[in-house]
Amino acid sequence: MEKPKEQQKRNKLVIVCSKGSLDMAYPPLMLATTAAAMGMEVDLYFTFWGMSMINKKTIDSLKISPVGNAALPMPNILGMIPGMTAMMTSMMQKKIQKVKMPSIKEMIATAKESGVRFHACSNTMDMMGVKKEDLIPEVDDIIGAATYLELASEDAITLFI
Amino acid sequence: MEKPKEQQKRNKLVIVCSKGSLDMAYPPLMLATTAAAMGMEVDLYFTFWGMSMINKKTIDSLKISPVGNAALPMPNILGMIPGMTAMMTSMMQKKIQKVKMPSIKEMIATAKESGVRFHACSNTMDMMGVKKEDLIPEVDDIIGAATYLELASEDAITLFI
Amino acid sequence: MEKPKEQQKRNKLVIVCSKGSLDMAYPPLMLATTAAAMGMEVDLYFTFWGMSMINKKTIDSLKISPVGNAALPMPNILGMIPGMTAMMTSMMQKKIQKVKMPSIKEMIATAKESGVRFHACSNTMDMMGVKKEDLIPEVDDIIGAATYLELASEDAITLFI
Repeated sequence: MEKPKEQQKRNKLVIVCSKGSLDMAYPPLMLATTAAAMGMEVDLYFTFWGMSMINKKTIDSLKISPVGNAALPMPNILGMIPGMTAMMTSMMQKKIQKVKMPSIKEMIATAKESGVRFHACSNTMDMMGVKKEDLIPEVDDIIGAATYLELASEDAITLFI
Repeated sequence: MEKPKEQQKRNKLVIVCSKGSLDMAYPPLMLATTAAAMGMEVDLYFTFWGMSMINKKTIDSLKISPVGNAALPMPNILGMIPGMTAMMTSMMQKKIQKVKMPSIKEMIATAKESGVRFHACSNTMDMMGVKKEDLIPEVDDIIGAATYLELASEDAITLFI
Repeated sequence: MEKPKEQQKRNKLVIVCSKGSLDMAYPPLMLATTAAAMGMEVDLYFTFWGMSMINKKTIDSLKISPVGNAALPMPNILGMIPGMTAMMTSMMQKKIQKVKMPSIKEMIATAKESGVRFHACSNTMDMMGVKKEDLIPEVDDIIGAATYLELASEDAITLFI
């Protein structure tokens, strides 16, 4: 017996943000902002390298990761030439400006205004020596894996980015 | 009160394909084809570097990403020696042939025949300047994050690869 | 009509472990152990580079992947200087010891004791030439994608790491 259609619709999105590169910072924020605009509850859990996205010291210096990207010219060599990542990051930032995509900082502000909740991983902070005062003001709280799992278990769409 | 067993079984798989490397192109296609063979509904949403998998210009030149792979000899050095990624890609392709694994192009054709749906991300296309005519014919449509979220919210198994 | 709260709680976690780097080995094990401690059923499915985590030959030599990590100094250069990954791996291991985080081997033992189930991907074993006797004793069985999907379809929290 199938569940009636109304019961199947999930209205919650819980994303683990684990990467510190510019290219993997956009997807969770774009999904979060879109989901919030659709009326969904959204929680972002920043862990490991993802801490870079909510750390005042690093939020403005995220770089793209050229590895394994066959869509760009000479993907194998890019990572090996000093300055290439910087050049590609600058190219990507120009494209982002051209299509009027906001910066990571702006996307975080927009997401926050839409009601997206920001959670920092306590374990990662201990391991990396990140202090509470290093975090951007948009962060709601510092939580552990158990609290993340509580959020994810509430019939949410779950993603690990 | 637990849901009866029949209600718990989900029959839908929705995967975000965000990587452009050969090694991360196989997992979504293998899962998609297997799920379709089991009678599940399957949607693949290609975004960011994942666009390489459905772009005619790049589909045949995906490379493997050696970084962080401790299963291969000298993982730290591999990425730094010119020609090593090419050599490893060729090694992986030989292994793929040896175990009779199909190519990415063949896997996409098989997945399509099994009913898997292919969605290109509109935002990524704008940002990377990919045109509709650049996409392989297997692509069903070009959608935004909101449509992806609609698909994911229908009680699907969700993965971000 | 919303489902009553008790029905919404999911009590199962199914993670695909696809990476072979030290930094991406911790998150699935930390989530798995925490979930098991909370009384959840947990299944880990090791595929592609994730095989490194359950292969006796590689489990003790996982390295961190410096690419795309803006939280560390000079992320762009790190991957290009021979010895830097080794140095960063050693730095991370020291931090891990300082905050008394267990090693991967110890985390796997703890997870196993808590009831976490370990599944090796049959396809990956064929492709990489990994034999059953290469696997650590904690591995419960060797399964294919169909069995993974069966596990994931049982209303589990699903993640691809």
